[in-house]
Amino acid sequence: MAKRNLFYAQSGGVTAAINATACGVIQTARANRSRIGKVFAGRNGILGALREELIDTGAESAKTIAALRHTPAGAFGSCRYKLKDPQVDDSEYERLLAVFEAHDIGYFLYNGGGDSADTCLKVAQLAARHGYPLQAIHLPKTVDNDLPFTDCCPGFGSVAKYVAVSTREAGLDVASMCETSTKVFILEVMGRHAGWIAAAAGLAAERDGDPPHLILFPEIAFDPARFLARVERTVKRHGYCVVVASEGARFADGAFLADSGATDAFGHKQLGGVAPTLAAMVKDNLGYKYHWALADYLQRAARHIASATDIEQAYAVGKAGVEYALAGRSGVMVTIERGRGARYRWSLGEAPLEKVANVERKLPRGFISRDGFGITAAARAQLAPLIAGEDYPPYGRDGLPCYARVEQKLVARKLKTPFPA
Amino acid sequence: MAKRNLFYAQSGGVTAAINATACGVIQTARANRSRIGKVFAGRNGILGALREELIDTGAESAKTIAALRHTPAGAFGSCRYKLKDPQVDDSEYERLLAVFEAHDIGYFLYNGGGDSADTCLKVAQLAARHGYPLQAIHLPKTVDNDLPFTDCCPGFGSVAKYVAVSTREAGLDVASMCETSTKVFILEVMGRHAGWIAAAAGLAAERDGDPPHLILFPEIAFDPARFLARVERTVKRHGYCVVVASEGARFADGAFLADSGATDAFGHKQLGGVAPTLAAMVKDNLGYKYHWALADYLQRAARHIASATDIEQAYAVGKAGVEYALAGRSGVMVTIERGRGARYRWSLGEAPLEKVANVERKLPRGFISRDGFGITAAARAQLAPLIAGEDYPPYGRDGLPCYARVEQKLVARKLKTPFPA
Repeated sequence: MAKRNLFYAQSGGVTAAINATACGVIQTARANRSRIGKVFAGRNGILGALREELIDTGAESAKTIAALRHTPAGAFGSCRYKLKDPQVDDSEYERLLAVFEAHDIGYFLYNGGGDSADTCLKVAQLAARHGYPLQAIHLPKTVDNDLPFTDCCPGFGSVAKYVAVSTREAGLDVASMCETSTKVFILEVMGRHAGWIAAAAGLAAERDGDPPHLILFPEIAFDPARFLARVERTVKRHGYCVVVASEGARFADGAFLADSGATDAFGHKQLGGVAPTLAAMVKDNLGYKYHWALADYLQRAARHIASATDIEQAYAVGKAGVEYALAGRSGVMVTIERGRGARYRWSLGEAPLEKVANVERKLPRGFISRDGFGITAAARAQLAPLIAGEDYPPYGRDGLPCYARVEQKLVARKLKTPFPA
Repeated sequence: MAKRNLFYAQSGGVTAAINATACGVIQTARANRSRIGKVFAGRNGILGALREELIDTGAESAKTIAALRHTPAGAFGSCRYKLKDPQVDDSEYERLLAVFEAHDIGYFLYNGGGDSADTCLKVAQLAARHGYPLQAIHLPKTVDNDLPFTDCCPGFGSVAKYVAVSTREAGLDVASMCETSTKVFILEVMGRHAGWIAAAAGLAAERDGDPPHLILFPEIAFDPARFLARVERTVKRHGYCVVVASEGARFADGAFLADSGATDAFGHKQLGGVAPTLAAMVKDNLGYKYHWALADYLQRAARHIASATDIEQAYAVGKAGVEYALAGRSGVMVTIERGRGARYRWSLGEAPLEKVANVERKLPRGFISRDGFGITAAARAQLAPLIAGEDYPPYGRDGLPCYARVEQKLVARKLKTPFPA
């Protein structure tokens, strides 16, 4: 069998674990030199394929590739770019195939969330239609943990650990000063459509009364009166109240809290900020001193406090992607499957992309406590194993983590037409 | 010499390292049982002394006390409480002395910032005036790093490390997606009056062009036009721009940026938020997609990424406090002194509280680059050693750090009058 080249690309929001998947892909491909030729990475994701900007990962040392395992964000660049619907305009998909053909790419490994699963499926279908031999494999990645058919998504466990650890730490801070200072602390976390990340904050609580005292999920309609009553009750009972709010928290009519809030000095609506909106509500109605934090990218980039389980899975997913491709599979996503029994065990599997693409997995109602403000034992059982274990990056003598720097050396173009044409 | 009791209290904003100082105090006192009787801790700081709410640390196991070293926030409670000026009303200081006398307290170790140095001094003076034998020692603590006569302040190194690491991580995140997504990222950090914490973000940059691209210091008047021009230039050159802004950033007229911003839905001025103010400025004038983060308490509570140097110093300061007290000293603050030479070495010293109290040490102009947006080599040399080394807390199998829980068992009151009377 002739050696063919491999193309790997990162898509959408980056995570603390996506480079571990890249590491798994590249190291496994290098271990299979007899069957895989060059390993290209798309510069800025799928845009790199469209523009024929292919990074030659062969130019990177084994040491740099190994360091990807402990490096956050997207080492080859990622993008938010939605390909045109090929039913309407198939020029972009045709272009992808032309680039793949020009560079003899036989393996397409696409690392992203729901949108990229859809792209990967369409590429697989187009290649089949053209009779172009291509193994197209989707590698899951999303901090939102909202892909179906996989027990969890690489990237989520690390953001979950960051949020749980930060909630525990900030909770101790507030508790120790609440008598004369801040009584209400609000931490806003990611998850526009699903409350998985917010739910992870619930892992911080060990005993009754521990923070977080309230979690606001996108899945539960926000009721200001119930919220305020609960905050007040918590402050009266415990002296303080820690709230973790999903950025996707919304009112019963579907409007986001983040859109309801502030107007800046110029009269423009200010974007973002469930936390300040809630803080203003608390101050106006209850008069408590408050503080709030918005972790934003800090949470998904926090490789320094990554979950060892997450990093192992992210790496394994990349490795399996190459193995599946070599085994002739295509049009599938690598999945993480949980074993039965109380002790957490996982293995890898696969799911057909037809079923995966564009399906969003919300937090099940059974994971949210009856009152809508906390997590259940079922949620805890599901989430706790995903943050287990620490996987620290190496640090320099300067006290900072040593993260990989990739050269991003591009291979020469072979096509005559540029993109866009 | 008769055994006398020791009183320790935490004051003001808590940190990731203040409990390490408590650990140093208690372990050293326990090692000197022949001279020190009981070790009391004030419940919620100095309020605990005023109210005669004394925590008997003897009720805590050696294991719990040892765990304080790796536990963030104030295990005995802290407070923001300014004692009345004794020149005007000396009832509170008299009350302190009455409580000390009732419990035979011969050693007063007060752990805080500038205000508490002043309190400690006044207690020492009052005791001397009354002929009450008391060793009053101040133990420095502040994330703001703004105390004079000490090379650095315990608590600062850990927040500095958090900010430098987070800046590096978020910078990689933004860099990897800037072509099609966020171009400007703003991280707001603490430091209302001094730019030490903001300066620490500068340590994240290794090479020219590395984030952070701009730092906004309280010490440099904010000029919107210059700021926007620099942001635009940075985006054009590097594709993205990372800004780290001190919460104390202010205009030339002294007004805080945080106060200039948003009004909420009810027309109330929204508190906090240099980052959203800057983000709105960037959006309105340059049109770039932005994101912002506000770390708030997360930064000062982040024991999970504490600086080993900071924790060692925090512990050593507590230990030295007890030793100084036993040696008969009073009215002094324990200081950290930097050795000469390129290799970082430190030892402990002392400074008279008359000189320390209420003096604020700002970031020297020589630590800020000429253009006002970065740090100099001198700043780097000063700050880099303070974030060196990692000192991870132990983690449970649940993936969360194991932090100490203190019982806070109070000793019986001896005074008849309550506080306030």
